[in-house]
Amino acid sequence: MNIFVINSGSSSIKYQMIKMPEEALACSGIVERIGSGDATITHNTYKDNEKQKHEAQSHIRNHVEGLQAVVDLLTDSKIGVIKDTSEISAVGHRVVHGGEKFSNISVVTESVKEEIKKLFPLAPLHNPANYRGIEVAEKVFPAAKQIAVFDTSFHQTMPEKAFRYAIPNKFYKENGIRAYGFHGTSHKYVSAKAEEYLQKKDIKVITLHLGNGCSVAAVKDGKCIDTSMGLGPMNGLVMGTRAGDIDQSIIFHMVREMGISVEQVNNILNKESGMLGLTGANDMRDINKAVEENGHDAVLAMDIYAYRAQKYIGSYIAALNGVDAVVFTAGVGENDVNTRERICSNLDALGIVMDKEKNRATGIKGVKDISHTSSKVKILVIPTNEEMEIARQCYQLMETNK
Amino acid sequence: MNIFVINSGSSSIKYQMIKMPEEALACSGIVERIGSGDATITHNTYKDNEKQKHEAQSHIRNHVEGLQAVVDLLTDSKIGVIKDTSEISAVGHRVVHGGEKFSNISVVTESVKEEIKKLFPLAPLHNPANYRGIEVAEKVFPAAKQIAVFDTSFHQTMPEKAFRYAIPNKFYKENGIRAYGFHGTSHKYVSAKAEEYLQKKDIKVITLHLGNGCSVAAVKDGKCIDTSMGLGPMNGLVMGTRAGDIDQSIIFHMVREMGISVEQVNNILNKESGMLGLTGANDMRDINKAVEENGHDAVLAMDIYAYRAQKYIGSYIAALNGVDAVVFTAGVGENDVNTRERICSNLDALGIVMDKEKNRATGIKGVKDISHTSSKVKILVIPTNEEMEIARQCYQLMETNK
Repeated sequence: MNIFVINSGSSSIKYQMIKMPEEALACSGIVERIGSGDATITHNTYKDNEKQKHEAQSHIRNHVEGLQAVVDLLTDSKIGVIKDTSEISAVGHRVVHGGEKFSNISVVTESVKEEIKKLFPLAPLHNPANYRGIEVAEKVFPAAKQIAVFDTSFHQTMPEKAFRYAIPNKFYKENGIRAYGFHGTSHKYVSAKAEEYLQKKDIKVITLHLGNGCSVAAVKDGKCIDTSMGLGPMNGLVMGTRAGDIDQSIIFHMVREMGISVEQVNNILNKESGMLGLTGANDMRDINKAVEENGHDAVLAMDIYAYRAQKYIGSYIAALNGVDAVVFTAGVGENDVNTRERICSNLDALGIVMDKEKNRATGIKGVKDISHTSSKVKILVIPTNEEMEIARQCYQLMETNK
Repeated sequence: MNIFVINSGSSSIKYQMIKMPEEALACSGIVERIGSGDATITHNTYKDNEKQKHEAQSHIRNHVEGLQAVVDLLTDSKIGVIKDTSEISAVGHRVVHGGEKFSNISVVTESVKEEIKKLFPLAPLHNPANYRGIEVAEKVFPAAKQIAVFDTSFHQTMPEKAFRYAIPNKFYKENGIRAYGFHGTSHKYVSAKAEEYLQKKDIKVITLHLGNGCSVAAVKDGKCIDTSMGLGPMNGLVMGTRAGDIDQSIIFHMVREMGISVEQVNNILNKESGMLGLTGANDMRDINKAVEENGHDAVLAMDIYAYRAQKYIGSYIAALNGVDAVVFTAGVGENDVNTRERICSNLDALGIVMDKEKNRATGIKGVKDISHTSSKVKILVIPTNEEMEIARQCYQLMETNK
């Protein structure tokens, strides 16, 4: 069964086609700068685990044309992977915000679409683009089941004490203001992998998804009990360009005392803050280089980044009353040995001791165990695969609904 | 030596006169509703540890008249404690914000006053009133040394990774936006008491100041290394009417999607949130009563309040890499057995186990040790005394400068 996974952005479409239940990646790619006049498609096919890259530039005016161009590649006589779109059984859509309605994936119906629309105010940057992706896929893949997979679903098991804010009740009851959390598909995937690796069920896991966006989740018995992102995806850990946790007074200070507009403050905290705001760069490789040269700003930024993560680990050990494993995943979490080392330093009182040699070891596929033999807590590096998780969930749903 | 301690608010003056080095409280009181037409003075004198209360109503148009009325009581022929104001050697002023300039108490000079003025934008509700208190005291107690004691000073030892936010550097360098922390005098006083009680130096202590305002501090070797309040006194723990930590997205959501003005949002988060926003009440005794009656909102509010405190304890154990003692202080911390019990529940993985009997025991003066014999971490209840701490610091300064 072919599952086509879509992550639709405001001017881009990321996609993968995965054969299930083999979990075999058939092709992947991205259409970028849709509507800009110089859109590009990068399309990858796989043969015997070899990736072949095909790039094209094209006039793509909108998402329909973008997805249609992808279909041309999927069905191409030379590099195609299917004969026609009817060979795709389901399209799995990554939808950022599922609110409280969706604690699970959902076959797209008119009422599901209405619900996703209702959540536009809670995710103004993401849900409208995800919604457009669904509408376009309905046109381009009319024979496939459209399935929505929400970034927030995994976090719907959080208890009320974790997801509520101490603000007047009506803002929750009437306006849905609460913590939802994001990166749920990733946290779910790697926490399940950790269970599998440790061959134990019902464990306590803290998962750190460190990419451009960063979040941490506390998972108990396979269920999320807390996470660092809240109503939106800008608080919690320090990120590439997002500030993470700040004192809300800063916003009032900037607006009232410094005369900066609310829109500008929002922009500063989302796009000019985080590692970029502290160092002028937001790629960890550049920042690590500056750290080696002992640049004050870079060292400080890495200190803040790691310290914030350490404090979240501590707070989630309190929330879980213990922890069996700490998991690193996503771009930075999987690849940046220095960041992992900083985060795991001076935490032995919490039973967390890293083996620095193992942390630096390369060439390991799958789960990498970097805990020292003296560590009570397992420290694991687990590559995330959100598209595979989406394909799995879609496949399960298709099998159940047969 | 008589030290007169003043906490000047926008329409109130709180005061104590303390004899040093005996640390004997001679009188205390508060002038309230200054300028409203029906100002009141509540003045207490102490004889053989018996408190005698004197109440008066008066037309007090401003802070000068307010403090003059206090002097009349101080020098009253029947209930007076001094003959004239020259018997007061120093006036210790509680000043909320000392910025980065004041890591210690400071004799008031014109340049100190200028610095306090410069900090008005960072503490618009408090510093102007504290400043006025100094100017008034200079007139009313012309023979006394005026000394400023800052709420932020104790936290000035925080390392940069703890006090900086991940926002563009210029906001720190040019505008002083960083975490300052508050309740410093209280955290200092009780953490020193904990050292004294445990008869150990260089310990790791987490101090929870739970009053109307709430904050927590991580103290190592007598120095603060982190605290929950930041630029202003509204984030961190849940408080009586203040929200504590929230996702900053909430502010943008309220302004942009709900059309609430920035001023109103600020007001909501400062005055209508916290326990009040969650339950309709902000006195812990009322909320505890509602919990007994199993009211959902009250139970939830107490859960959130305690859970937030637990997470801070966990995060500061990570920051300290261990902890020797957890200290409860201030109104709620000293008196609310239920809140202490909730906070110390299910933290045994962190070595924190409360003895519930000891927690409920009454009639103990001074430090109350409520840790279970199995607890690796000491749990202590220590009454705070900010005025005494201010008097001590002033006395030390006077002795040093003799």
